[in-house]
Amino acid sequence: MTDDEHSLRIRLREIIFGTDTPAGRGFDIVLLVFIVASVANLMLISVAAIEARVGTLLHALEWGFTVAFSIEYLVRIYAARRRWAYIRSFYGIVDLLSVLPLYLALMLPSAHYLVAIRALRVMRIFRVLKLVRYANDANVLTRSLRHAQRKIQIFLGVLALITVVLGALMYVVEGPVHGFTSIPRSMYWAVVTITTVGYGDIAPGTPLGQALAGIAIMLGYALLAVTGGIITAELTNEIASERQRRQCPHCERSGHEIDAHYCKFCGGALDADEAEDAPADEEQAEARDKLD
Amino acid sequence: MTDDEHSLRIRLREIIFGTDTPAGRGFDIVLLVFIVASVANLMLISVAAIEARVGTLLHALEWGFTVAFSIEYLVRIYAARRRWAYIRSFYGIVDLLSVLPLYLALMLPSAHYLVAIRALRVMRIFRVLKLVRYANDANVLTRSLRHAQRKIQIFLGVLALITVVLGALMYVVEGPVHGFTSIPRSMYWAVVTITTVGYGDIAPGTPLGQALAGIAIMLGYALLAVTGGIITAELTNEIASERQRRQCPHCERSGHEIDAHYCKFCGGALDADEAEDAPADEEQAEARDKLD
Amino acid sequence: MTDDEHSLRIRLREIIFGTDTPAGRGFDIVLLVFIVASVANLMLISVAAIEARVGTLLHALEWGFTVAFSIEYLVRIYAARRRWAYIRSFYGIVDLLSVLPLYLALMLPSAHYLVAIRALRVMRIFRVLKLVRYANDANVLTRSLRHAQRKIQIFLGVLALITVVLGALMYVVEGPVHGFTSIPRSMYWAVVTITTVGYGDIAPGTPLGQALAGIAIMLGYALLAVTGGIITAELTNEIASERQRRQCPHCERSGHEIDAHYCKFCGGALDADEAEDAPADEEQAEARDKLD
Amino acid sequence: MTDDEHSLRIRLREIIFGTDTPAGRGFDIVLLVFIVASVANLMLISVAAIEARVGTLLHALEWGFTVAFSIEYLVRIYAARRRWAYIRSFYGIVDLLSVLPLYLALMLPSAHYLVAIRALRVMRIFRVLKLVRYANDANVLTRSLRHAQRKIQIFLGVLALITVVLGALMYVVEGPVHGFTSIPRSMYWAVVTITTVGYGDIAPGTPLGQALAGIAIMLGYALLAVTGGIITAELTNEIASERQRRQCPHCERSGHEIDAHYCKFCGGALDADEAEDAPADEEQAEARDKLD
Repeated sequence: MTDDEHSLRIRLREIIFGTDTPAGRGFDIVLLVFIVASVANLMLISVAAIEARVGTLLHALEWGFTVAFSIEYLVRIYAARRRWAYIRSFYGIVDLLSVLPLYLALMLPSAHYLVAIRALRVMRIFRVLKLVRYANDANVLTRSLRHAQRKIQIFLGVLALITVVLGALMYVVEGPVHGFTSIPRSMYWAVVTITTVGYGDIAPGTPLGQALAGIAIMLGYALLAVTGGIITAELTNEIASERQRRQCPHCERSGHEIDAHYCKFCGGALDADEAEDAPADEEQAEARDKLD
Repeated sequence: MTDDEHSLRIRLREIIFGTDTPAGRGFDIVLLVFIVASVANLMLISVAAIEARVGTLLHALEWGFTVAFSIEYLVRIYAARRRWAYIRSFYGIVDLLSVLPLYLALMLPSAHYLVAIRALRVMRIFRVLKLVRYANDANVLTRSLRHAQRKIQIFLGVLALITVVLGALMYVVEGPVHGFTSIPRSMYWAVVTITTVGYGDIAPGTPLGQALAGIAIMLGYALLAVTGGIITAELTNEIASERQRRQCPHCERSGHEIDAHYCKFCGGALDADEAEDAPADEEQAEARDKLD
Repeated sequence: MTDDEHSLRIRLREIIFGTDTPAGRGFDIVLLVFIVASVANLMLISVAAIEARVGTLLHALEWGFTVAFSIEYLVRIYAARRRWAYIRSFYGIVDLLSVLPLYLALMLPSAHYLVAIRALRVMRIFRVLKLVRYANDANVLTRSLRHAQRKIQIFLGVLALITVVLGALMYVVEGPVHGFTSIPRSMYWAVVTITTVGYGDIAPGTPLGQALAGIAIMLGYALLAVTGGIITAELTNEIASERQRRQCPHCERSGHEIDAHYCKFCGGALDADEAEDAPADEEQAEARDKLD
Repeated sequence: MTDDEHSLRIRLREIIFGTDTPAGRGFDIVLLVFIVASVANLMLISVAAIEARVGTLLHALEWGFTVAFSIEYLVRIYAARRRWAYIRSFYGIVDLLSVLPLYLALMLPSAHYLVAIRALRVMRIFRVLKLVRYANDANVLTRSLRHAQRKIQIFLGVLALITVVLGALMYVVEGPVHGFTSIPRSMYWAVVTITTVGYGDIAPGTPLGQALAGIAIMLGYALLAVTGGIITAELTNEIASERQRRQCPHCERSGHEIDAHYCKFCGGALDADEAEDAPADEEQAEARDKLD
């Protein structure tokens, strides 16, 4: 590997993966605009009336976006420090999925609808936004959500259990006349009901079914409201005790926010070893290191 | 009772009720798979199109599961320390109800639908999961829910009161033309409305009814949101003061989580007498004791 | 007023308004049963199929309940310490409204539906339950709700504002074709939508209306969720600081629950002057005092 | 500028922008009544049946209100300290928009519907109410909402992301038969679903679509519930630490409410320099200052 190639890859990496240099920020903003425009373009193509009028233009644009994203994907692979790590990472897969469907569509026309997977690409918008200005809150949210992962699982477990039991009960009570034609369909009704969505495409029609549904809704609603309250109460106390636990090594005062890097009383660094661990983004970390 | 029989029962108890030995864990996992598969099987049977195609196979599987669960039920009775206690316990009844309906169906064909009661069996999934890895959170949730039991009752009381009053009012205002044919039916509408499910199968049609419903929805929504907030606020403070109250007998520091067994500062046992009381599961406790 | 009459009134007051004596508790339970039975009776009467079969019996029962409640009302007036205060109190009006409609119905048959007002009587169930065993929690809830009254008003104000603005906007955008025939009707749609009830009896049909509704729903949902969060957060801190503020005059330790009457550390009375002020119920207080 | 004109403007400013003098309060109340009456009038005009009967009277009233608000607008411009600042302020634009549409309607009859913009005028009701008696809570709410602005943005970001991804998925899975005719329309369905509004005008009809929708609803519901809980938990701790941080400069005790101006322990002013910064309303501040 020549020295020139080496420095080209580092330079590309700074632009594509980094957000600290002006070029890196500029690239992120251009990419963001491209993503939003390409998603908007896909939406417009899906509207029959618009597609009939300006379909040729929109499909040309779509090809333009796909080629641009393909180049971006290849350059990302070229510039990435650990190529396999990038390809197998969440964003690597999203990047591939955002260009693959259209090429596939050329070969098998039935794969045409897969372009919708491109919508996943929108997730990158959020990531860029996160880096630019919402880094703080979004990180706290992500960290809190990961922290509350088990609570979400418990919540989902309770929901799933209610769904199966209630779905089976209503299937027995209502029968196929009012739309409860099978247990899976009854479970669909139970989910729609217990989460208070309530489309009304399936609804109990017999007095017994309505009485049972009424009681189940009240119980489920109260149970979920209080479960939500318990989760909130526990999160509040966990955040409070986490704040309490973080003590400034310089002035020895506690009560710092979870995402604070510096003491709010004396300005000293809260975690001496955080400087290296801080980068919010693995790829960003890669961009900083040298190639061998 | 012979010594052999004695040790057989203890061995069986360890496998069936216990979760500490490899055999006990293995049994739980096999049972879990059987339960999920049997519930999935029941769901498939309920779908007419699938039942028409592979009904014979599914019904054969259903018989297999029923026989397997029957054997499990009988072995549980045989191995249980206090047999009557098991039979009358929540899980004993669930175990019986998960096999009884099919046998009943042989005698009275109209009891056929009762197989849905098997869905209750799914609750055992949650229990096994709880023991394996979610023991902590699920216990806190269960304990919190038991603690907040009165709050749930108050919440349900408020809901029930609004339901009766609003149902009666709308029955008077709307009358039978738009579906409010009786007070019970109006109450069904009131439950569906006040919990924000809102199917739309019954909805106010007169201007007066819509105005009344609109105001009632706003008031009910605000009242329930604030009631939920009050319950959450109280739970937060109760958990906080419960944490405050738990003091380590060794280092005398407080602030321990409700479900902590050891001091997070010095590692000492928080409650000396908890060792015996700790088992999350009565049956598990039984399995540990000797037979007389 | 003779001495006998005097003591009769005191005795009646203890039975009817009091809950401390066995007779008082017994009266409350009988009344509770009567109220539940009379409300259930009214529900059954409203079901046409049942009314056609056993209407004569149910209407006879209805007359029985009305006469019983009439006697109760007259005795309450007779026994009350301050008669006018009782008659004009919330429960006095409820008591009157629970018997008046049937008598009115004798004179003007069109007033027949007014019997639904009897449903208000159900509120007394809650009051009795409160005294028996939920006194603690229900009092805290009532006090908290009164404390959070302004927050509920703000919440309702925000809801009302969104309703008017959104209703007017959708009336302009959608027009009468899809059910938005007038601003009041659009406002009914806006209430049903913003509270997430969503019947679907009126729903936007034009692309512009759907886009506007989609954005409005997202904004309203996020705004109300965060407003609810703010209210909960403030309530939590208010309860916490109220606990902090309550200091035992004996051992000088704070952190007592809002509804605690005695110090949880030393058992001393928290508020020396609360003994007289404590009664949860004005009528109960009256029952204790002597007549002049 | 003459001295007379100068003092006239100051006097007008006190009446129109101020709320401290009896005249200022009186003006606010008259304005409030006018706003409510004019909004009610617009609602009545929109009801065809009422418009047919008393339309002439209502339209005359509408002209009366418009002329009155026009005079108010002109006087406000005349009396304002910094005229451009008022004209470009939120309330200046609302004031203009509440009179402009009717004049425009004279010229271009198609602009007729724009009168609905007048509904924005209702926001002034809230502002006046705020000044009169809800100043405290409303200020705290506004401040909290501004404080939680990023959290609302994150919440909206999560909602928007789910909407795009779920909308695209359902468009692919369900197709145009059940109403998912385009991605924008699918996104409308996704918003209506994920916020639990659930009209039911579009609902999945295929088993795969129902299964996908059921899982998406459960995941979205749990995610949003926990996200709401995290936001509430963070707000609770932020309010708590803000209270902790506010220390009385006189008695050095902390724990004061965010909107407290005086120490609750010693009565001293909490912020010496707040006297000048306190006014809740820029216009009010202007009214107090002298003209140059």
